Amino acid sequence: MSNKVLVFEQKIKEAIEKVSQNEQPATLFEPISYILSLGGKRLRPLLTLMAADLFGRDVDAVVESAVAMEIFHNFTLMHDDLMDNADMRRGNPVVHKKWNHRTAILSGDAMLIEAYRYFENVPAEKLPIVIRFFSNMAMDVCRGQQYDMDFEQRTNVTESEYLEMIRLKTAVLLACSLKIGAVLAEATNADAALLYEYGINIGLAFQLKDDLLDVYGDPKTFGKKIGGDILCNKKTYLLIKALKHSNKQQLKELEMWLSKTGFDPEEKIKAVRNIYDELNLKSISENLIEKYYFASLDCLSAINVPDDRKEELITLSENLMYREK
Amino acid sequence: MSNKVLVFEQKIKEAIEKVSQNEQPATLFEPISYILSLGGKRLRPLLTLMAADLFGRDVDAVVESAVAMEIFHNFTLMHDDLMDNADMRRGNPVVHKKWNHRTAILSGDAMLIEAYRYFENVPAEKLPIVIRFFSNMAMDVCRGQQYDMDFEQRTNVTESEYLEMIRLKTAVLLACSLKIGAVLAEATNADAALLYEYGINIGLAFQLKDDLLDVYGDPKTFGKKIGGDILCNKKTYLLIKALKHSNKQQLKELEMWLSKTGFDPEEKIKAVRNIYDELNLKSISENLIEKYYFASLDCLSAINVPDDRKEELITLSENLMYREK
Repeated sequence: MSNKVLVFEQKIKEAIEKVSQNEQPATLFEPISYILSLGGKRLRPLLTLMAADLFGRDVDAVVESAVAMEIFHNFTLMHDDLMDNADMRRGNPVVHKKWNHRTAILSGDAMLIEAYRYFENVPAEKLPIVIRFFSNMAMDVCRGQQYDMDFEQRTNVTESEYLEMIRLKTAVLLACSLKIGAVLAEATNADAALLYEYGINIGLAFQLKDDLLDVYGDPKTFGKKIGGDILCNKKTYLLIKALKHSNKQQLKELEMWLSKTGFDPEEKIKAVRNIYDELNLKSISENLIEKYYFASLDCLSAINVPDDRKEELITLSENLMYREK
Repeated sequence: MSNKVLVFEQKIKEAIEKVSQNEQPATLFEPISYILSLGGKRLRPLLTLMAADLFGRDVDAVVESAVAMEIFHNFTLMHDDLMDNADMRRGNPVVHKKWNHRTAILSGDAMLIEAYRYFENVPAEKLPIVIRFFSNMAMDVCRGQQYDMDFEQRTNVTESEYLEMIRLKTAVLLACSLKIGAVLAEATNADAALLYEYGINIGLAFQLKDDLLDVYGDPKTFGKKIGGDILCNKKTYLLIKALKHSNKQQLKELEMWLSKTGFDPEEKIKAVRNIYDELNLKSISENLIEKYYFASLDCLSAINVPDDRKEELITLSENLMYREK
């Protein structure tokens, strides 16, 4: 990690520690401080700072907007964990377990509002476009989450439906984090649009990589248990491809595992992964990830700033692309 | 109801019917259309239009912002119904019963975002102040809901804590609906502030009247069952006053009813109301309502526009003040 990025991360960390500090009632704001304190990659605010830096802007001017993106991201985690009835988040109990359902709903709502409040000091002439981007992105993320939930009830989800779902649920937030940084840094519309597309491609690669690591990750480095998606029949890229390309016998076995209750977890993971292996899905998936990765680099190289300014973003893309966790 | 107000209500109705129309996925947006279609007083958007009209502005210019207030109000209803585990809303099943919990959470989130999107066409120079007012109001409403939930666990809630809770949970939304109309209609800061204070006073009177009608309303005109607050031990103004001013014997009886499970509903309502009667709480409450009502009229009369422009707001205040439902 370059020195510059470490400085950016420190600025973000300090700004996030101040969110909701000393706000009353504590019953509303403590869960907000709690979820933000659990850490995570803090990738979204980092992207906002890197975007501003790409266009030669002092990153201090965009720290608050960057924090807005992280607050929004954690709002979605708080509500998604509740909707998915999750137990743990980053090794700690989720808000609706540590407190209760009502707290997770209301503190989540307050976080969404707090995200908007973090744009308060955006220059007045920039505010309309920033708020519009942000709101449209936020609605897209809701749409993505809804599609994700809808897919649970379906067995005929297509590859393109899946890609659209992860675009909405994951990629637009990364892309918007970049674009808001670009807009605040006075980038041209063309450059801001290219950076947005870079973000969409990186976001798609990022989520596909997540799906892949869940099945093929190294348990030692991955940080969470391998096979979680397989156990809950999550409609990932791998499962959708498998359902489509299986021969009769593979399909029969796959459907047996999807409908089976009371199975041995390791046995199910092994059996499903075995079908994925037979269908060569690991390298099919890696090829698609690579396609988006190269597309993202194309967007980046078309942006009209000196190449040396792009180094941090290129390194970041590589890290996301070749990460093992 | 004056002709003018009927025209305003028609404009609001037509604009609300267009919210989320044809948006995809339907699983996300149908619950939004559903809750908005249940009607209700639509008091908040009406206040925004009346505020614009008070300062001589064409109301069409503020209809979208007015709709934002109604969307926000219904977002709070969707999430509050879930947090309160309510069954019915305006004679119809609530969203988390008609659909499920996840739908009520996510469609509610989408409504909050949609409310912000309805400010998209606010003139750029007005947007910063409108968004700031709106976000601060929205956070206040969350605070009010949190206090309301916190009060359930307490028996020592004071009168001033209660009044602060209803100010946050109910009054600021009415006041903000008026103030945004005033700001968009180029009212002076002083006049906009007076109209805000008018709204706070009307809001407090409105909620105290609600509490009173729940106990003393006429079942024929009230529209819902009398005594609901008593049955669930809700910390209303009446109960807080009763807990404070009861003599030893009254307090003992009140506490018996508050802790009793498996009671006859009619018997509990009658017994608690009997204590309220002994303590003269109906007229004490009416006096306080009147105090806020007169304070609201003082604010209105101090606003620097011709008196005849104020007629609709005065009639509205009277209607809210002397309503029986």
